[in-house]
Amino acid sequence: MEENENLEALDYESIQEKRSDELMELLDSRNVKELQRRMEEMNEYDVAQFLTELEDNRMPMVFRLLSKDTAADVFANFDTPEQERIINAITDSELAGIVEELYVDDAVDMLEELPANVVKRVMRSATPQTRNLINQYMHFPENSAGSIMTSEYVDLKKYMSVKDSIARIRRIGEDKETIYVCFVISSTRKLEGIVTVKDLLLNDDDTVIEDLMDRNVIFATTTEDQESVSEKFSDYDLMAMPVVDTEGRLVGIVTVDDVIDVMEQEATEDIELMAGMTPSDKPYSRTGPIEMWKNRIPWLMFLMLSATFTSMILTSFEERLSVVAGLIPFIPMLMGTGGNSGGQAATAVIRSLSLGDTEPQDALSVLWKEWRTSILCGLTLAAVNFGKMLLLDRMLLGNANVTVAVAATVSLSIVFVVMFAKLVGSLLPIGAEKVGLDPAVMANPLITTLTDAVSLLIYIFIAKLILHI
Amino acid sequence: MEENENLEALDYESIQEKRSDELMELLDSRNVKELQRRMEEMNEYDVAQFLTELEDNRMPMVFRLLSKDTAADVFANFDTPEQERIINAITDSELAGIVEELYVDDAVDMLEELPANVVKRVMRSATPQTRNLINQYMHFPENSAGSIMTSEYVDLKKYMSVKDSIARIRRIGEDKETIYVCFVISSTRKLEGIVTVKDLLLNDDDTVIEDLMDRNVIFATTTEDQESVSEKFSDYDLMAMPVVDTEGRLVGIVTVDDVIDVMEQEATEDIELMAGMTPSDKPYSRTGPIEMWKNRIPWLMFLMLSATFTSMILTSFEERLSVVAGLIPFIPMLMGTGGNSGGQAATAVIRSLSLGDTEPQDALSVLWKEWRTSILCGLTLAAVNFGKMLLLDRMLLGNANVTVAVAATVSLSIVFVVMFAKLVGSLLPIGAEKVGLDPAVMANPLITTLTDAVSLLIYIFIAKLILHI
Repeated sequence: MEENENLEALDYESIQEKRSDELMELLDSRNVKELQRRMEEMNEYDVAQFLTELEDNRMPMVFRLLSKDTAADVFANFDTPEQERIINAITDSELAGIVEELYVDDAVDMLEELPANVVKRVMRSATPQTRNLINQYMHFPENSAGSIMTSEYVDLKKYMSVKDSIARIRRIGEDKETIYVCFVISSTRKLEGIVTVKDLLLNDDDTVIEDLMDRNVIFATTTEDQESVSEKFSDYDLMAMPVVDTEGRLVGIVTVDDVIDVMEQEATEDIELMAGMTPSDKPYSRTGPIEMWKNRIPWLMFLMLSATFTSMILTSFEERLSVVAGLIPFIPMLMGTGGNSGGQAATAVIRSLSLGDTEPQDALSVLWKEWRTSILCGLTLAAVNFGKMLLLDRMLLGNANVTVAVAATVSLSIVFVVMFAKLVGSLLPIGAEKVGLDPAVMANPLITTLTDAVSLLIYIFIAKLILHI
Repeated sequence: MEENENLEALDYESIQEKRSDELMELLDSRNVKELQRRMEEMNEYDVAQFLTELEDNRMPMVFRLLSKDTAADVFANFDTPEQERIINAITDSELAGIVEELYVDDAVDMLEELPANVVKRVMRSATPQTRNLINQYMHFPENSAGSIMTSEYVDLKKYMSVKDSIARIRRIGEDKETIYVCFVISSTRKLEGIVTVKDLLLNDDDTVIEDLMDRNVIFATTTEDQESVSEKFSDYDLMAMPVVDTEGRLVGIVTVDDVIDVMEQEATEDIELMAGMTPSDKPYSRTGPIEMWKNRIPWLMFLMLSATFTSMILTSFEERLSVVAGLIPFIPMLMGTGGNSGGQAATAVIRSLSLGDTEPQDALSVLWKEWRTSILCGLTLAAVNFGKMLLLDRMLLGNANVTVAVAATVSLSIVFVVMFAKLVGSLLPIGAEKVGLDPAVMANPLITTLTDAVSLLIYIFIAKLILHI
């Protein structure tokens, strides 16, 4: 912490804001030397944030003030548009310098988002070795462990001593993404164990790695889904995890900072799917209306057209329902209650499935639990609604159409609508998971449309029974 | 990795399952010694999983086979019900052993969930020192940085050399939650900088910490919200973060494994709120129907009662709407489309707010973006609906009520309903954030209820204009 922030502002945001203002002043007064010094001292993420806020013409100029090492670190912290802007503003040799300094996983992330012509220029400026590595890493399927791993790790051999190992870390550790977990491999690169720097520091210099290493390694395979990787990080409190190929050979590592990004991304994806949107990697603030339309219109269209069934049912029964005045106005409430009940169940089950708390084989116990919950919810709602219709609608608002029979019809319908909605809401996501679909697709909008139609049928059936319409 | 798993099963899950089966066999054949040996070798999380699957009477017995150190680690990996079962089955001195071995943050997490009488017994068995520490930590507000921090960190002084520092880590590092980030403090415990083990290993033995440490520390204050802490971990790719009091004194650290739990918890909370449920810390699989009813009924009830407005509007206009046959059956479709459009906008904005991508002051640019998107979506849906009503409903299904004028009324209503829904859907969460409420509360169910009523009004208004009802 710097001395200038003692009393007035003891939170990182205020310090950060103040610093950014000072940098802006230095820039405006063209105090390049001091600006340079300050940027080198700051965290790379903060420098990237500061540069992102600058106007387009000034930004690459200020970026070029950074030293080579810092430039690569700051570059890795940019979003795609800023990366593209920088690439277009620097020389081939500057670009080459940055590409060589980037961790492979950051380089691959960047190249996956950039337009083809920019990718070409980046690849051309890389050394053949880096180019090969990047190409190899870009071949792993999207959202697989392979697609988020990196190649900058420390490998050890089991016959090495603690002293040798620490010497090796000192020699090659500088550019590694983590040095705290080291990976013990055989001569054929088969993964044999892991050793942490803590193990190394807390043991004698001449202990042999073989006696120290943990053979019980939690690992991932290259094609494993990133969601399963992040579950393991969360379960086992890992800092880094080795990724092996089908022969058990170590090909890369995943570090916890990448897993945090994966978790945010997966949660956003689930949330977007659950609201009937096509998930997108782009942050909301950077998505334009055309793209948003593209992400949103498919589900809106599908759901609007699916509502045709509800319209057809209403068309057939409109006359019959009108026979007893006062029935039609309660249709939206019934449908809404069905949709909300089903949405709750679906959401709870989807989240539980994605956290690994519920498995498809638990379908029966989920059903049993939701069935009991739905009876409790349905009866409570029905009782309150019955009272409300008679007291508020009939007596206070003077709606003579609301008879005891009408109130009973609506209330009884609520019970069955809630039961149906909760059962469908909990079963659809489990069914989706079973057939290999993302359960989040089966969320609120779809269930709402389904319960709309069924709620109406339940209502008509009960009205026939009680009111003989 | 063990030798027994070379070809058939190269993924961690299969290895784990096989291992669990073998343990079960050892247990059934009462081969206690081998069982003990195997459990000591396994990861604590896996041991906890294995014990959780055992029947109630066997579980504490097997737990007591574990060595003292392993027992505490395994205990920290249990869910609350298992922790309670163990506490009730072990002696006071065994309990004391476990409590002393736990990290403070794990102890606090546990005590916050356990019933009062069990908490009493745990506190009684702790040493006065531990009891004080736990009491102090339990005072921080829920979901604050203070509530997730721990006290087991390595502190250094700035005048120490690299050699002294490594010696200190070797001496006190064993029981620290992380040794890889060390915290440099003054004689009054003010935080002055941080040093990583990587810095220590890559520098000469007699370098002084002062010349090495990073003064530009990213820190949190004890009362800071845990969501803001996890945002910093994600932005700055941190492993550990110091927590300071109002005087800038170091009081604890937050480690990345706790942040991963926070992220899962916050995402679950948002998702549950967005579906109209009271968030709960308990996993779905462990929540009973009564508790689920408690979490779900408040919103269901509120939303059902709010639908009274929609019913009232429909009651007043039912007769008028019936004048032109064919209008009423399209009400559910209109309401559904409004709810879905608003839900999409709300979800996108809520997620963007919670990731720190959008701030309340961006309201105008959000509005402008959603407005353009809503026009695009509205027009597309209206055009398709117009064609669908005339071709499918009128010509194919022979519904004579669907005239060109009716189709135009419905389609024009769609445009305005979608516009209204997207604007309300995006503004409500921002408004909530502005007044300090959780934006996730303003999600689908609430917006659906609101758009239901307004959609109906728009529909009636446009029907008056076009059809003169």
